[in-house]
Amino acid sequence: MTESENPTTSPDQCHSTHQAHGYITAKDDYLKRLRRIEGQSRGLQRMVEEEKYCIDILTQVSAMTKALQAVAMGLLEDHISHCVVDAAVAGGPEAEAKIKEATDAIARLVRS
Amino acid sequence: MTESENPTTSPDQCHSTHQAHGYITAKDDYLKRLRRIEGQSRGLQRMVEEEKYCIDILTQVSAMTKALQAVAMGLLEDHISHCVVDAAVAGGPEAEAKIKEATDAIARLVRS
Amino acid sequence: MTESENPTTSPDQCHSTHQAHGYITAKDDYLKRLRRIEGQSRGLQRMVEEEKYCIDILTQVSAMTKALQAVAMGLLEDHISHCVVDAAVAGGPEAEAKIKEATDAIARLVRS
Amino acid sequence: MTESENPTTSPDQCHSTHQAHGYITAKDDYLKRLRRIEGQSRGLQRMVEEEKYCIDILTQVSAMTKALQAVAMGLLEDHISHCVVDAAVAGGPEAEAKIKEATDAIARLVRS
Repeated sequence: MTESENPTTSPDQCHSTHQAHGYITAKDDYLKRLRRIEGQSRGLQRMVEEEKYCIDILTQVSAMTKALQAVAMGLLEDHISHCVVDAAVAGGPEAEAKIKEATDAIARLVRS
Repeated sequence: MTESENPTTSPDQCHSTHQAHGYITAKDDYLKRLRRIEGQSRGLQRMVEEEKYCIDILTQVSAMTKALQAVAMGLLEDHISHCVVDAAVAGGPEAEAKIKEATDAIARLVRS
Repeated sequence: MTESENPTTSPDQCHSTHQAHGYITAKDDYLKRLRRIEGQSRGLQRMVEEEKYCIDILTQVSAMTKALQAVAMGLLEDHISHCVVDAAVAGGPEAEAKIKEATDAIARLVRS
Repeated sequence: MTESENPTTSPDQCHSTHQAHGYITAKDDYLKRLRRIEGQSRGLQRMVEEEKYCIDILTQVSAMTKALQAVAMGLLEDHISHCVVDAAVAGGPEAEAKIKEATDAIARLVRS
């Protein structure tokens, strides 16, 4: 395993041994949801362009934020199931680092 | 302009008397920020497409959520400065309704 | 009106002219809710003391956070109804400062 | 200890084999932080009792929410390090269930 090569900014080795589950198979689903989010961001531009009522724009912002957070939760579950668990099974300091990295990402999501 | 298409219930007149401040003058700024957010949503699609590292994708989701919330805060400040304050100065049940509507929108933002 | 005396850290003049509504009359309700939140914080201590299951503790933390945010939303609505609206009716730079102060507080709540 | 009273469904054995790390050793630290949070909730009651300025109360609510979320993040990291990782090492459907349970708890935190 080459996990040790890339602690953070790295591409995807961590997924590459798991072609069968999660992230990879759900890729189309994630892309579909993200395209819908892109559509929401264009809808917001249109609403501002046409000077729609502020509260309606804010309602759309809330809906878009919720959709984004749902994508994040899915990715997080995949990440824990694959990368974190793999690192945990392998053991050692890498395991602890992966868990710390994941909880830091969660803390950023909670605060954002 | 086709404000009358307005999807939900709210009147738009609340902006129309304030061509000079806030929302209207900041429109280009909001549009620029929303286009950047649209770009972020496309960046996320690319990251998922190329199976980038989950944590890096989550970091981008956090950044995008923060950018969205900042737009919401700006719109909210404009809304309170114009619609809520105008309704308050006019007084009556409309004033109370506007304040309730604004705090409901805030509650949705806090929870999203 | 003595609104101009106390822009930020100040006590309560802003409420004192409104004995009849909002904050003052709801005081007992706020105190009851805050006492319940205090009880939740003691419940959390007991759960940690007895080493209860982590997920159950986290569920309690979420419930307590929601209760706190609900108190904040109530206070915010009262604040906008009284202080912000009063300042708006009085007009001038004080009005703008009150609105900015309120939206800054909202931004802190959204991020916390 | 009367762990069997455990209010919801979850087993506590997941902590009991880990007397040496995380949750157990950090217990005093968690209790200290939760006592400080309890103090904050009493401080809030005092502020409402004395009708302090709303914005100052809201600032305190934000600080208390942040403190609570920090406790939650610590507990979550402990939980993933112990229960989730143990279940993952053991494998089987229990592993998947633990990960789902943890991400559901995270989603509640993100939304609260």
